[in-house]
Amino acid sequence: MNKIDVVSTEVEKNNKDKSLFVIKIGGNVIDNSENLHRFLKDFTALDGYKILVHGGGKAATQLSETLGIEAKLVEGRRITDIDTLRVVTMVYGGLINKNIVAQLQRFSNNAIGLTGADGNFIRTKKRPVKTIDYGFVGDIDENSINPNNISNLMKAGFTPVFCALTHDGEGQLLNTNADTIASALAVAMAKLYPTTLIYCFEKKGVLKDIIDESSLVNEIDPKGYEELKAQQIIHSGMLPKMDNAFSAIACGVNAVIIGHSDDLGNLKKNKPFGTRLSGNL
Amino acid sequence: MNKIDVVSTEVEKNNKDKSLFVIKIGGNVIDNSENLHRFLKDFTALDGYKILVHGGGKAATQLSETLGIEAKLVEGRRITDIDTLRVVTMVYGGLINKNIVAQLQRFSNNAIGLTGADGNFIRTKKRPVKTIDYGFVGDIDENSINPNNISNLMKAGFTPVFCALTHDGEGQLLNTNADTIASALAVAMAKLYPTTLIYCFEKKGVLKDIIDESSLVNEIDPKGYEELKAQQIIHSGMLPKMDNAFSAIACGVNAVIIGHSDDLGNLKKNKPFGTRLSGNL
Repeated sequence: MNKIDVVSTEVEKNNKDKSLFVIKIGGNVIDNSENLHRFLKDFTALDGYKILVHGGGKAATQLSETLGIEAKLVEGRRITDIDTLRVVTMVYGGLINKNIVAQLQRFSNNAIGLTGADGNFIRTKKRPVKTIDYGFVGDIDENSINPNNISNLMKAGFTPVFCALTHDGEGQLLNTNADTIASALAVAMAKLYPTTLIYCFEKKGVLKDIIDESSLVNEIDPKGYEELKAQQIIHSGMLPKMDNAFSAIACGVNAVIIGHSDDLGNLKKNKPFGTRLSGNL
Repeated sequence: MNKIDVVSTEVEKNNKDKSLFVIKIGGNVIDNSENLHRFLKDFTALDGYKILVHGGGKAATQLSETLGIEAKLVEGRRITDIDTLRVVTMVYGGLINKNIVAQLQRFSNNAIGLTGADGNFIRTKKRPVKTIDYGFVGDIDENSINPNNISNLMKAGFTPVFCALTHDGEGQLLNTNADTIASALAVAMAKLYPTTLIYCFEKKGVLKDIIDESSLVNEIDPKGYEELKAQQIIHSGMLPKMDNAFSAIACGVNAVIIGHSDDLGNLKKNKPFGTRLSGNL
């Protein structure tokens, strides 16, 4: 076997051996510096490739209020007007993203902070106006993400940190839901790597009894999901989240974990972490 | 010659053949959408590797004023307190940087927007307090920049776009002068690529007669620089800029061009552009 064969075999081996975590955090982590610190340390300690996706937190709302920009809601849905887009570009793309990157660098995690415009990583379409004009909001379609571009960045030694902004390829930045970005990234990257999608939220996971954190459901497969729905243990607000998760699994993601950011460290220690959703067991 | 030899020879050849432009733009380009559009188009058209560095423009000052953050000056020097750092992180790292990236993507220039924290590309030291406490300002030393890291990003197909922010490696973002970032990047990258540093400003270049744009000096070498100083054609505010430029040349940068952003397109057309500073002719 000559040198070039060894090199290319190693690359293939790396691709198959190296697993990928796509992890999404929201306001409950971002707005608490202690929680964020612990989370970023645990995130760094995870083996394999990692992509972080973060939402907004309170800072964007606070800045909007200070600047006198009214939150616009139509039929309960938030509208991104041009002033709000300016604010989220500053807060998501600048303040939160770059502070997370600086913190990760402290842990020698070679992070790069990104919007979907950077590297043309996530190209979306401005949501068409039907009954509601959502403003500068971008919807992800299946062609939004080229996994090889992101893989190139990770192979070059960098950890991508995405905020909730994308672009339309015509020079327009667009606001895009961070949960959706995370699942779309996981589905796209699953073509190249065994991928686990993790949603960190304020609960330990799916609970049989919402007020009892010890009633955690450790694992749910599609059959179990049907049973939990029938028993009304999973209902209302949790349904779209779970539907999205199972849809990501159907599209090739190995597993989706829903859990508390404080417990992420358990993954490294092979201890139980959150509720693991997977395909048919 | 086997395959691996061909590959490595090509890489070396590429490194030697591919030239690099490090181009700095300031407020006169950033604050005018037409100028910015034309500049970014001309920037994209340039052959070889390119790095863009941008300063602040009016948006940071305006946001500070709106938020009631007073500009703090001590002995005429601007101080970056924690509120100002927040503003510049939002405006430089978010608003300006990400809009430039989205514009470049429109021209199919695969830009990635960066602070020095991203990829640990530019690590600086918080300026020590002597007579003045400058606050969250980072000074670049010769070890601040690892050219191979940035080269890896460019080789992976990306165009780096740096704003005027760096980090200390301990989780702290720091405000750093964009001119200094540009010259430090050029000096570091000159170890790997034939590098030209371009400062875009509001004049056509060094003028023999400050009110006559046709009196442009096309080229200055160190000997010519001494003569122009003796003739008082270059004086006061221009001296530190020129000293920095010649110091960059002494450190390995091929040439420094000082010119108007509107004329950048001339480079591609082999027409005269700005004042070219070079080593001994």
